[in-house]
Amino acid sequence: MNLAASSTRFARRTARLRASTIREMLKVTQQPDVISFGGGLPAPELFPCDAMVARMRDVMQRYGPAAMQYSVTEGIPEMRSWVAQRLSPRFGRTVTPSETIIVNGSQQGLDLVAKIMVDPGDHVVLENPSYLGAIQAFDAYEARYLTAQTDEDGIIPESLEQVLREAAPFPKFLYLVPNFQNPTGRTLAAQRREQIVRICERCDLPIVEDDPYGELRFEGEDLPPLSFYPTNGTVIYVGTGSKVISPGLRVAWLVIPNEEVREKVVLAKQGADLHSGTLAQYLFHAYASSGDFDPHVRAIRELYRHRRDVMHAALQEFSPSSVSFNYPHGGMFLWARAAGIDTAELLEVCTRRRVVFVPGESFYPARDVHDGMRLNFSNQSEENIREGIKRLAEAIKLSS
Amino acid sequence: MNLAASSTRFARRTARLRASTIREMLKVTQQPDVISFGGGLPAPELFPCDAMVARMRDVMQRYGPAAMQYSVTEGIPEMRSWVAQRLSPRFGRTVTPSETIIVNGSQQGLDLVAKIMVDPGDHVVLENPSYLGAIQAFDAYEARYLTAQTDEDGIIPESLEQVLREAAPFPKFLYLVPNFQNPTGRTLAAQRREQIVRICERCDLPIVEDDPYGELRFEGEDLPPLSFYPTNGTVIYVGTGSKVISPGLRVAWLVIPNEEVREKVVLAKQGADLHSGTLAQYLFHAYASSGDFDPHVRAIRELYRHRRDVMHAALQEFSPSSVSFNYPHGGMFLWARAAGIDTAELLEVCTRRRVVFVPGESFYPARDVHDGMRLNFSNQSEENIREGIKRLAEAIKLSS
Repeated sequence: MNLAASSTRFARRTARLRASTIREMLKVTQQPDVISFGGGLPAPELFPCDAMVARMRDVMQRYGPAAMQYSVTEGIPEMRSWVAQRLSPRFGRTVTPSETIIVNGSQQGLDLVAKIMVDPGDHVVLENPSYLGAIQAFDAYEARYLTAQTDEDGIIPESLEQVLREAAPFPKFLYLVPNFQNPTGRTLAAQRREQIVRICERCDLPIVEDDPYGELRFEGEDLPPLSFYPTNGTVIYVGTGSKVISPGLRVAWLVIPNEEVREKVVLAKQGADLHSGTLAQYLFHAYASSGDFDPHVRAIRELYRHRRDVMHAALQEFSPSSVSFNYPHGGMFLWARAAGIDTAELLEVCTRRRVVFVPGESFYPARDVHDGMRLNFSNQSEENIREGIKRLAEAIKLSS
Repeated sequence: MNLAASSTRFARRTARLRASTIREMLKVTQQPDVISFGGGLPAPELFPCDAMVARMRDVMQRYGPAAMQYSVTEGIPEMRSWVAQRLSPRFGRTVTPSETIIVNGSQQGLDLVAKIMVDPGDHVVLENPSYLGAIQAFDAYEARYLTAQTDEDGIIPESLEQVLREAAPFPKFLYLVPNFQNPTGRTLAAQRREQIVRICERCDLPIVEDDPYGELRFEGEDLPPLSFYPTNGTVIYVGTGSKVISPGLRVAWLVIPNEEVREKVVLAKQGADLHSGTLAQYLFHAYASSGDFDPHVRAIRELYRHRRDVMHAALQEFSPSSVSFNYPHGGMFLWARAAGIDTAELLEVCTRRRVVFVPGESFYPARDVHDGMRLNFSNQSEENIREGIKRLAEAIKLSS
């Protein structure tokens, strides 16, 4: 095999791909007595299994063999219309189906965006910390990262401006998760949203707005997405059905008003896998357009809100004063900092105590902050959350 | 948008991506009075729609929410075991589930292989002509092509040897479709198979063996796949469920005995889309492991065999003597040559006469052979096949 020896660029790329904390995490998670705050899994007890059996019958009755045949790269028309309708009120305008592309989970959306935009060595601007799955997708195209600083209100506009002033080469796009960010659970403040859009418009910097958790707000008012603000710049919106129906269907979407960019993504997707699952799209659409969907999303919000409260209360009750943590208003993650502790090392102690989380380090492209912990609250029972936080707090005390 | 202006490599890549004959074809195909020999679609009337509804019920009863949750990148264990079992007799050894990776259609398999192996400017060796979808997948990584000549018995070993002797840089892999090739319907002769494996072993050239039609032999004996021959070289086998159950499920597989290569593909897939559809895999597995599956594959073979015969007879009856065509022993395509005619121009005449096919030119990386036609026989009724070939023959007579 001449592969490893001859392809140094590739070898380098793979070495970076290897640093997959999430993947290693999932292996430990599968052990039955481990309480995992590590994954980003929805609560399976809410998956609408019975309803999906009924929708399967409907889909086959209505569409027959077409539901099992090849379909177009952009997605089935029914799904594209549904996405357009669902997002129109949030975008403050009529989104047209032709602006949308259905992808295999938002991970594929991020991969395709990098595929058309990033050449080796190109810069991408990220929030610091940022979503690990995005970093992984961009790593495969050998992106380099510039990071804008964040606070409790998300990315700091002045930091972004400074990064762009000093950037060489000028970055290809800004990637951010404005709502209930992964890993921090933080939400970009309302007044900063238009600021970010204007900065990027002025600098001609495309924005990739990743919004997996936008439907999962527990309290307060929905904030307009960055895609809400009219701009001459390019904004690519990434949404997903994974958090509101089922990740196992792999139904997610891109909204790309810019036709030239959209066409490039479609061609990239065609080369990558021809099209997303036809049957999965029909099933998703049948459930999402039924009367069950909105009550279902409300039930998810309700459950996660409760679990967040239980986790927050447990952290208040059990964790030592060296630990700080936030109170996210939606999504699936709470972010904690254990002052003076390297949480990658803490994880080893925790694994022995049968509780796991994702150490913050992996979310910082420079891997230079070591005391963060991403704590997922959507996938464990109240009882497990209390018990898991108790174990975590004990491990922290031991490690202090 | 600074994208188009700044990213020249990308612009070039996109220009090549644009040359998507298949895609343009599909648009015409959707017009109702057009008889299409252009696509590569299975016969939808054989899709097991009712059985899939029943299997959906089984899957939900048996696996419940796990069928809708995130799953591992390599594929669900049930699918991997099924693939291993199915291929063991053909490979002449016990294939283990750990050698397999479930992908979103074989197109994704080809994309991932290129992603880990091809840097811009690298050479890939293809049969001449070769499968267009593969060329598209490799184009996205800016591969360049070397072509080995073929005859009615597939790729010619001496031509491959010569190409490898002269190649600079040395290619990254050989891609070929040994059974009922797309576009030619040709099958690599038995005695050439081991020869090809030995040449590649000697030169340390990985083989990508794409076998979408291997299950669809109409007569004669199955030939051992290239993966059958023990070798110190690397062979990547690509199989798919698209032609035996449903392309809309997007369930396909790779078999990669070499652990190092396999691990790279898994990591590339993780970045590309995390994993293939969980529900689609469970549904596929439930049907494929049921008693319905083997009779179903037999029924597909029977129908396609008949349609091939109808197409072949119609070509004999209607086409002028300037047209030559073959009699493939399986698969979905028949290959014809119209001496002295540019079939890309012929297609325009045909489109007006409401019959379409894929002009051969696109399958030749150098686009230097203009008289070929790929004729799909799986997706039209006997009546349409006769009528379509009649229209095609008239168009050829007009164009001569």
